[in-house]
Amino acid sequence: MNDLFGGFPDNTSPSNRGVQLSERDVELLDTTLRDGEQAPGVSLTPDEKAGIAEALDRAGVAVVEAGSACTGDGERETIERVTDLGLDATVTSFARGVRADVDLALDCGVDGVNLVVPASDRHVEQKVGSSREEVVETTADLVAHARDHGLWVEVIGEDGSRADLDFLERLAETAHDAGADRFCFADTVGHTGPDRAYEAVSRLSELGPTSTHTHDDLGLAVTNALASVAAGADLVHATVNGVGERAGNVALEEVAIALNHWYGVETVETTELYDLARTVADATDVALAPNKAVVGENAFAHESGIHTDGTLKDERMYEPYPPEKVGRERRLVLGKHTGRAGAKAALAEHGVDVTDDELAEVVARVQDLAERNKRVTDADLLAIAEDVQGRERDRRIELRELTATSGGAIPTASVRLDVDGDERVASGTGDGPVDAAVSAVREAVSDPNGPDGVADAQLDSYHVDAITGGTDAVVTVEVEMRRDDRSVTVASSDGDITRASVTAMVDALDRLLAAESDPDPATAND
Amino acid sequence: MNDLFGGFPDNTSPSNRGVQLSERDVELLDTTLRDGEQAPGVSLTPDEKAGIAEALDRAGVAVVEAGSACTGDGERETIERVTDLGLDATVTSFARGVRADVDLALDCGVDGVNLVVPASDRHVEQKVGSSREEVVETTADLVAHARDHGLWVEVIGEDGSRADLDFLERLAETAHDAGADRFCFADTVGHTGPDRAYEAVSRLSELGPTSTHTHDDLGLAVTNALASVAAGADLVHATVNGVGERAGNVALEEVAIALNHWYGVETVETTELYDLARTVADATDVALAPNKAVVGENAFAHESGIHTDGTLKDERMYEPYPPEKVGRERRLVLGKHTGRAGAKAALAEHGVDVTDDELAEVVARVQDLAERNKRVTDADLLAIAEDVQGRERDRRIELRELTATSGGAIPTASVRLDVDGDERVASGTGDGPVDAAVSAVREAVSDPNGPDGVADAQLDSYHVDAITGGTDAVVTVEVEMRRDDRSVTVASSDGDITRASVTAMVDALDRLLAAESDPDPATAND
Repeated sequence: MNDLFGGFPDNTSPSNRGVQLSERDVELLDTTLRDGEQAPGVSLTPDEKAGIAEALDRAGVAVVEAGSACTGDGERETIERVTDLGLDATVTSFARGVRADVDLALDCGVDGVNLVVPASDRHVEQKVGSSREEVVETTADLVAHARDHGLWVEVIGEDGSRADLDFLERLAETAHDAGADRFCFADTVGHTGPDRAYEAVSRLSELGPTSTHTHDDLGLAVTNALASVAAGADLVHATVNGVGERAGNVALEEVAIALNHWYGVETVETTELYDLARTVADATDVALAPNKAVVGENAFAHESGIHTDGTLKDERMYEPYPPEKVGRERRLVLGKHTGRAGAKAALAEHGVDVTDDELAEVVARVQDLAERNKRVTDADLLAIAEDVQGRERDRRIELRELTATSGGAIPTASVRLDVDGDERVASGTGDGPVDAAVSAVREAVSDPNGPDGVADAQLDSYHVDAITGGTDAVVTVEVEMRRDDRSVTVASSDGDITRASVTAMVDALDRLLAAESDPDPATAND
Repeated sequence: MNDLFGGFPDNTSPSNRGVQLSERDVELLDTTLRDGEQAPGVSLTPDEKAGIAEALDRAGVAVVEAGSACTGDGERETIERVTDLGLDATVTSFARGVRADVDLALDCGVDGVNLVVPASDRHVEQKVGSSREEVVETTADLVAHARDHGLWVEVIGEDGSRADLDFLERLAETAHDAGADRFCFADTVGHTGPDRAYEAVSRLSELGPTSTHTHDDLGLAVTNALASVAAGADLVHATVNGVGERAGNVALEEVAIALNHWYGVETVETTELYDLARTVADATDVALAPNKAVVGENAFAHESGIHTDGTLKDERMYEPYPPEKVGRERRLVLGKHTGRAGAKAALAEHGVDVTDDELAEVVARVQDLAERNKRVTDADLLAIAEDVQGRERDRRIELRELTATSGGAIPTASVRLDVDGDERVASGTGDGPVDAAVSAVREAVSDPNGPDGVADAQLDSYHVDAITGGTDAVVTVEVEMRRDDRSVTVASSDGDITRASVTAMVDALDRLLAAESDPDPATAND
């Protein structure tokens, strides 16, 4: 089976891979701004589209499909925003197989068009109400028209994976004869397997430069993209995070890292991939699954004892490539499967040293907490260690009372805190009950005579998991607070989102203060 | 390239696929309860594990790896919960290459063990501090021990994709000679490509029954699983939703549907896949990405004009297989890319008829709203249609005042509503400010002299997107309320989660009342 994916050499060292492929030039076309935006619920503002386009350009993506000019005035303004950026990338617009669409694209100042014509009989006859002959004629006519106006032209045979292959070839031939720069094999509905993709692209790439456009309905988007490349495709359509119609398009970051790591083929600057993913996740409001390859929160996180221990011995033990390659960092996480090595490393980060017996007890209690709680934060670990080591630490900040009023015009809150035995009462307003309560806490600790290191603590992140299942669901709030180079995460769960938020924040402030007053807590036990 | 993925026939009709493969018996081993639970932050209770195991059994999964008996007492109790269920599936425990682990597994009453021994030199030498010779000896010894006790035995060569292939073969041979039921090719760190997976499994399956275990770090989990099957593997390790270490394991639902749809190979009851996915998502708290293949919220949703129009003409136009095949339903969604056909169909669902001119205006305004708002609900659509048709509808319920107090022991809220011109004031308590406010609204509309159809309306779903980016972030609340067979979704965004929630709920009640008073709104315009 040496020619699985087109005769790549079969030795196992990635550095020796892709001897043939790496001599070829494989590029990426990103269609996050067009096919990605067609995902249900996704709508990008002109600023968001421009920001994504710039991030794509920084990563060195070859072609940016900026939108579909026929959609409306707003869309055309947005495409013009992208064409005005002066990117290195070729900027294109999607166009249906009608002259008006090509002309609208021209009005936006794009470099090229992705001209979509129906390829399968289902699309030719039932969707468009046309015939194969008519589609061929229209294609020839529109390609010539676009070329006459200086456009780069890619013809996409829609639903190509369900098309008659002979007709698909005829369509590609027509496109090339009329001057198209390339023809694209499209698995529009995510229906095909790699054997079919390979066969189709093999035949199409005999006729001229060939692209591939794959969807993930069967989980085969990457498989089919790689089979296409193996068969001769040299431009892969993708979207960042795989956002797109239905199950989405093939994920740009997956194609890029698979080609880079396994086949030794460079398509983009991989160190930009994580920033790109975050930019698109924020703009589209399509959150990244924690187990999303390359860019998910857990892609370089280790919790289980065996994996953490192995990773601490040798970073490559449980990772195919270092996280820095895609602009990220490794994370060791505490939880049900935490072992001795992981707990010891986490304690060391907070300057806490433990004996072997203490460590065993800490691990047992971390596991126990995780079994009940699912999330173990820094604060939990430190509290467990203090208890195990018999270090009695008085809390320096404690929440005594909280009242928040919301619903009306000015959400308002008041708190009573105990700070080093000193009672502090303060109030605040905000956008909602949580915001008001947080500003009341800030006010209470901002006393210039108060302890150092609290008033200027930063709330680095505030996160609430999505709430489903009813208005009485327990809400989990996780905050990360930082002062100078000390950082602490705390989670708190409550049916009352206001109380959960303030409790987490006050606990985090208390931890930062504790660190302040006892820079080397390990010594407290000696 | 006829033998891409092992010489499957290359004709395009799925019904003709898999002539060879479908004669083979390919089964799935689910390791959601073991490798899936090792995902950072995931911890399953005994009840949750039992529930997942039963769902796996209903779907016809052949082998359920229920946990890792060596982890601790809690884990062993959980495994026993699963073995006591009397499932049709073979129930196994993970065991490291030490006799104590096998004995602990035996104590739990499992049918078999997945015995993990290091295969790559990195794992043999650096992780375990052993030698190839020692590993071979241990393997032979442990397999014999497990077989002596009547266990089904699978030997997994950990990090097999980075192992010397000759040694991997020797390990497999040792396992088979000692009586193992099968040997598993493991791409433990998600490092390999399909050419390597194919080559390794081809060689291993010459020696005896072979499994495959793939991870998604490069986005190649499905690719490698299929390459392994093509090479002769007949048991595929997978986890539901792809939950697992780092980027996760290959997703069970993707392997199942790819084999079913493209290759004509049945592994599980596909109609159970969606229930299974929801069960695991709820238990693990790992939310499904909307664009997740097969089970994501948008996998069978259509918004864009071209796709909705096409789908309304022919359901197969933009879908590879019907959603019912995996236990789901199709959704048409309104948004920026909504076209005439989609808007018309959505209006018809609510009994609203529009002229062509009105439809054009409705579409333009839906698109405009979506460009600003990102989400267009039923209520938005109906409000737009009323406005376009000049149907003046007086609101029947309106929120005049809302106050919610939280943070203390008893979150309390009060509302003043205008219901058909009648002022209603009520209060309520709850778990948090939102819950209290919702119960105040319920109290206010529960007047037996009040309008029909409100007091008994059900809050079918309440959803708040995850909140990130600060305590002043705008919160979007979406509610679905139902009375009898009428259902309406409303979304509301506000910096104040209490106000957003109550506004959405009151708007939904108003919509249900409007429908009540005007059962055929279309006639209002005639």
